[in-house]
Amino acid sequence: MTDSGIPGLPPTLRWKGGAQGLLVLLDQTRLPTAVVFRECGSAEAVHAAIRELCVRGAPAIGVAAAYGLCLGTRSHSGSSAGEFIEQVRKTCAFLESARPTAVNLSWALRRVCRRGEAAISAEADPQRAWELMLAEAHRMAEEDAAVCRRIGEVGAPLIRDGMGVLTHCNAGALATVAHGTALSPMYEAHRQGRRFRVFVDETRPLLQGARLTAFELSAAGLDVTVLCDGAAATLMAAGRVQLVVVGADRIAANGDTANKVGTYGVAIAARHHGVPFYVAAPRSTFDLSIPDGAQIPIEERSADEVRCGFGRTTVAGGAACYNPAFDVTPAGMIRGIITESGLLEPVSVENIRQIVGCGSCNEG
Amino acid sequence: MTDSGIPGLPPTLRWKGGAQGLLVLLDQTRLPTAVVFRECGSAEAVHAAIRELCVRGAPAIGVAAAYGLCLGTRSHSGSSAGEFIEQVRKTCAFLESARPTAVNLSWALRRVCRRGEAAISAEADPQRAWELMLAEAHRMAEEDAAVCRRIGEVGAPLIRDGMGVLTHCNAGALATVAHGTALSPMYEAHRQGRRFRVFVDETRPLLQGARLTAFELSAAGLDVTVLCDGAAATLMAAGRVQLVVVGADRIAANGDTANKVGTYGVAIAARHHGVPFYVAAPRSTFDLSIPDGAQIPIEERSADEVRCGFGRTTVAGGAACYNPAFDVTPAGMIRGIITESGLLEPVSVENIRQIVGCGSCNEG
Repeated sequence: MTDSGIPGLPPTLRWKGGAQGLLVLLDQTRLPTAVVFRECGSAEAVHAAIRELCVRGAPAIGVAAAYGLCLGTRSHSGSSAGEFIEQVRKTCAFLESARPTAVNLSWALRRVCRRGEAAISAEADPQRAWELMLAEAHRMAEEDAAVCRRIGEVGAPLIRDGMGVLTHCNAGALATVAHGTALSPMYEAHRQGRRFRVFVDETRPLLQGARLTAFELSAAGLDVTVLCDGAAATLMAAGRVQLVVVGADRIAANGDTANKVGTYGVAIAARHHGVPFYVAAPRSTFDLSIPDGAQIPIEERSADEVRCGFGRTTVAGGAACYNPAFDVTPAGMIRGIITESGLLEPVSVENIRQIVGCGSCNEG
Repeated sequence: MTDSGIPGLPPTLRWKGGAQGLLVLLDQTRLPTAVVFRECGSAEAVHAAIRELCVRGAPAIGVAAAYGLCLGTRSHSGSSAGEFIEQVRKTCAFLESARPTAVNLSWALRRVCRRGEAAISAEADPQRAWELMLAEAHRMAEEDAAVCRRIGEVGAPLIRDGMGVLTHCNAGALATVAHGTALSPMYEAHRQGRRFRVFVDETRPLLQGARLTAFELSAAGLDVTVLCDGAAATLMAAGRVQLVVVGADRIAANGDTANKVGTYGVAIAARHHGVPFYVAAPRSTFDLSIPDGAQIPIEERSADEVRCGFGRTTVAGGAACYNPAFDVTPAGMIRGIITESGLLEPVSVENIRQIVGCGSCNEG
């Protein structure tokens, strides 16, 4: 994939070159004012890029990590099978530590790792196993784009002419290989000619809504309005929001959903005002090994993101900061989950098992 | 008053000199990194200081405007009585236009204006009338400090050892002449030896929570933790908040309360988690001429506060911004209102009339 799916929007990530190639990331920390690319030639470089949010969004992190695993094992493809597999597993564990909440990260790493293991088991030499791993990463990138496009088709009928649609953070083309998750239904409805307004929470502390979602939606010609996170409730009270769609970083077996901090507050406000609240996510975001949201590990990030997030100190020296990266919205507050396999509504253990419960996703 | 009531904290505003003096404001746009004062010698300078949020918070705005009215009419105190009163009324209207939502602004201006009118009616010459107006402004400053101290005494029993208390924006010493409104019960409970943690929403777009509330609470030695506005709901879900106290910019006759945007979302989240939500405000914040919150004018401020609030552009060029300065929390979501005349609980038209319904406040 070398196409974001959005005209005018550069690709979030792409592999440049063949077996000796490298991963090129759109540096999202520089948006919206600068379009700069970052080349990663090692697992360490990919780990740093994920950690620093140069690439972010659960699906994009997964694919970036898959390529990171290839980069971190390439120089070992001349070693013995045993040494090669050991390096694959070590690199997996290293990359998995970059972000603890997004389940796609471990899902993607496991998939590429298994491909290498299976090849070695079938007596391929490490060089061939490595090539199969890279091919698997390419396949995952293509699948992610196809899955996201399908999420758009499934979700687009929820959006009607004249609606106000609110989203939080960025679950768009920039969070995936192409098209996005929460934004994909908006792109598709727009493509089908419907006219509606998208309200975007700026999403403190890192302003992914203001910087990224507004950037890609306006590049695609949609009608976008950014607001501070605290203004969403009064916007709903004014009757200007008819639908909320957000992404997800991990969904437990009962439908409890971890997403960017602030999502849960939006869900409470939506429920209070009778506005339907939807999650859009590929099946790879479900983690059926986790019964409910209480078990989802929540990453706490540096206080400096709150304290001086804009290069200016905004918090008095004597104060502490609390900076969880995610929160959990209980399944009972979610009207439905838009997946590539259809609309999961209502959100129940049974419906989730039916749509998601394949071997590769089930039981982690 | 030349004392904020908080050890180590400079006064929010003070009159320097006698009849030829001027108003000195602590420039709150520079906090928490610089403590800088701004001297205002004219109504225009006070108008600009209010407009630019150098001084903010409903009670402080009221007193600053009262002094502004004195500054704007001083040079006319040698004119005829008719010309003088005309200038008083013109200056009143001018200063009232600085911020539309805070009712204390018009309340304070009306009070000083009436003092001048009454003096002229009683055949005082304009010079004497002007002196009485300045004395009235001084009296208001002293009263505001006393009222806020009393709000602290009334509200302190709500705060118990080990609690987590959440507030939004700044309703502290920096929003008043001294002590604050929402923060005054915290200062008083702390003075009485109780230990508790204060959680402060940073309060986008202008970060009054992070910049001002954290500044003054930590200066006073309280245990303060700042969080992004979007993190308040998950903090409540984790059981870490037992009480919410916020200030108010205007309270309608039925108890509907306008306060800094984001307050309403906090109230919804508090209700969802069974956390009691209190408003702290002097009686001068009530506007009994307005039956309910739907009639409260909500100031919409510049998009630039959202778009590039920190000297850095954070919103993509093609996107619009929505930036209401306030929102309205319905009376039904407010457990009680802490006033200088006692705790108003439950919040009902009758209770409000009983505590607030004096001649000067009633019917605007």
